[in-house]
Amino acid sequence: MFEREMRKCFRLAGKGLGKVSPNPLVGCVVLDSNGKEIATGFHKRYGENHAERNALLKLSPEQTNGGTLIVNLEPCNHYGKTPPCSDLIIQYGLKRVVISNLDPNPKASGGIKKLEDAGIEVICGILREEGEFLNRIFFTNITQRRPYIVTKTATTIDGKIATHNGDSKWITSERSRKLVKKLRKQHDAILTTSATVLADNPEMKHCTKIILDREGKLDFDKQIFKQGKILLVTTRNDYNAPKNITVIKGREIGGKLDLKDVFAQVYEHGVRSIFVEAGSILNGYLIKEGLADEIIHFVAPKVLNDNRGISCFAGDSIDLIKFSKEFKLVEVKALQPDYYARYISNR
Amino acid sequence: MFEREMRKCFRLAGKGLGKVSPNPLVGCVVLDSNGKEIATGFHKRYGENHAERNALLKLSPEQTNGGTLIVNLEPCNHYGKTPPCSDLIIQYGLKRVVISNLDPNPKASGGIKKLEDAGIEVICGILREEGEFLNRIFFTNITQRRPYIVTKTATTIDGKIATHNGDSKWITSERSRKLVKKLRKQHDAILTTSATVLADNPEMKHCTKIILDREGKLDFDKQIFKQGKILLVTTRNDYNAPKNITVIKGREIGGKLDLKDVFAQVYEHGVRSIFVEAGSILNGYLIKEGLADEIIHFVAPKVLNDNRGISCFAGDSIDLIKFSKEFKLVEVKALQPDYYARYISNR
Repeated sequence: MFEREMRKCFRLAGKGLGKVSPNPLVGCVVLDSNGKEIATGFHKRYGENHAERNALLKLSPEQTNGGTLIVNLEPCNHYGKTPPCSDLIIQYGLKRVVISNLDPNPKASGGIKKLEDAGIEVICGILREEGEFLNRIFFTNITQRRPYIVTKTATTIDGKIATHNGDSKWITSERSRKLVKKLRKQHDAILTTSATVLADNPEMKHCTKIILDREGKLDFDKQIFKQGKILLVTTRNDYNAPKNITVIKGREIGGKLDLKDVFAQVYEHGVRSIFVEAGSILNGYLIKEGLADEIIHFVAPKVLNDNRGISCFAGDSIDLIKFSKEFKLVEVKALQPDYYARYISNR
Repeated sequence: MFEREMRKCFRLAGKGLGKVSPNPLVGCVVLDSNGKEIATGFHKRYGENHAERNALLKLSPEQTNGGTLIVNLEPCNHYGKTPPCSDLIIQYGLKRVVISNLDPNPKASGGIKKLEDAGIEVICGILREEGEFLNRIFFTNITQRRPYIVTKTATTIDGKIATHNGDSKWITSERSRKLVKKLRKQHDAILTTSATVLADNPEMKHCTKIILDREGKLDFDKQIFKQGKILLVTTRNDYNAPKNITVIKGREIGGKLDLKDVFAQVYEHGVRSIFVEAGSILNGYLIKEGLADEIIHFVAPKVLNDNRGISCFAGDSIDLIKFSKEFKLVEVKALQPDYYARYISNR
C-alpha cells in the first residue's frame, strides 16, 4: 500500500539533487479523504521550505481534513531554517502519514511521536531500501560523520585503466566522458591526487577540488588551480599557497595519508559528498579501507589482452575469492558504445 | 514501414533457437490486401517446413490475393528438404514481399529475382542489422565456412578470473552459473582445453564437447568423457581413444594448435556454433586471432584489488589503447547479484 505514491515522492525528491546538500532529498504527496491526489511538493534548495510544507501550503485544511500525507523521510520536529513540519501536518487535520525512512538526525527526529500523540496514524518503512538508496549521501553523513565517497573508474572489458606501459587516452567514448562531467556536479567536491594532476593536468573547473599532495610536490601553475575552491591536503608545514587554496594538514599512517582523517577534516569544511577521479592506487586504497561507498564503472568494448595492463583497483592483493571486497549492483546501463555499472558498498 | 511486422518475424524466428541449426532462424507474417495480419509462421526444426510455408499453409489463395508477406530472410529458390518458397508465394497471389536480409547461401538465393519476374514488389533491407544479429551464426557459417565462436568469461569488477595464486571458485553466483548452462544449449558444442579439464574436472554433460589436448595428456577417466559426443583435438599420432571419442588431428603453428584449422575440421563434423569455456590463454588467443565472434562477460560485484590476479584475456600484450581489440556492445543486463554484457565482433 502507498508504494506508488512513495515512488512519486522519490521522483519528486530527486529534483533537488545537487541543490539541497547537506539536507536530504525529500518529496511529498497529499491525498484527500477519498484517496485522491490533491498536491505534491519537494525540497527545492537548502534553506528553503521542506517538502511537506511546499505541498500543504498549496491547500487549505478543509481540503486535507481526514486525508493522507506520504513523504519519504520522517517529518521534522525542530525549528531549523523553517518551523517543524509535524506541527503543520497536525494543523492541516491529516488522519494518516506514510513514511519511508526515519530521520537519523537526532536533532530532527521525534516527528512520529508528536504525530501519534496527536492521534494521527503513522505507517513507516514503505520502500525503505529504495529510500535509503535515494538519500545514501545524507544517511552516510549523519551515521558516519564523513562525506559519501563515490569512486569512478573507466576500463576496458578486461578491467584495465591503462596498457602495461601506461597509455590510457582514451579508453571510453566522448559520450561517457560527458556523463562523467554531469556526475561530478552531483557531488560537493572532486578528489584527485598530485600524481593525476602531474600526469593529466586536468582542468575540472567550476567545482570544489580536494587534491592529495602528501609531499607538496605540485606547482601552482597547473590548470586545476585556476578556478574554483581548492582544498589541498599535504603533510608539509612550509606550504605557501595562493589565496584560493585552503591547505589541510594531513597526517601519515605507514607512509600514506590517513584518509579517514582527511575525510573528517573536509567534512568540517562542509563537504558532504566526494567524486573520486584518480588512479588505481588511490582507488585500491579506498576499497581496502572500506571507504568506497559507491563505484561507478564505465566499460568500453575493448580488450587489451594481457595480464600486465594497469587494473582499475590496485593495492594489497586479495588471495582468495572468498575474501574479495563485495559490493551491491544497483544499476547497469548501456551508453553506446560503452556501458556503466553502479555499485554501492555492502556495509 | 513494416518494421513492426519485421520485429514480429524476429520474435517468431527466435523460437527455433537451438533446433534449426544449421539452418537460419526465420519467421514470417502475412497481411491481407487491407494490411490486416492473417497468419504467422516460423521455421520450427531442421528438415521441417520453412517459415513462409508454415504461414501460407494456414491460408487459402483467396485470403492472400493482393496481400503482403513479411519474412526476415530472402525466400529460398531451391529444392532442398522442401520445395522452393518462391513458387508457393507466387502461387498464393501475394503482391508484395518484404525482406530483412538476403540469403548469402548461393544454393538458396535467387528468390527475389524469381518473385520480381512474377510481378511481385520486393522490398529489402528492413531492419537489416537486427536481422544479421539474429542470424549471426548462420551468416558466419556461410561467409566464413567455420563455426560461430562465443567466448564466455566470468570476472570480478576488476576483470579477474582468479586471484594471483589461482583461486577462482566461485566468482559468480549460482544464478549466473545456471544461465551459463542455458546458454551452452544454444550452441552445437562446447570448447574447452586439457588445462581446464585437469584443473576443474567439469562434467558438461548432454552436449558435444571439443577438447583441445595438443600433447594428449588427458586420462579418459575424467568426468567430461562420461557422456555426450566428444571431439578430441591432439597432435599425437598414437592416441588410443574410447569409442565415444572422435580424434581430430591438429596441426601446430609456433608451438600452438592452429585454431583456424581446428575450426575448419569441426565444421566438417557439423559443428556450426561453439561456446568456449576455458581460461585466459585460450580466450586471449581467440581475441588475438580475431576468432572471437562474441564475448559474454559475467561480472560479479567483487573487487580483488591488485594488479596481479589473472585477467580474463591474456596473451600478447597490446601496447597502446588505439590498438586494442574493439567489440560492439549488444546487450547488458542485471542478473542480481551479478550482471552480464554481450559483445559481438566489430568485423
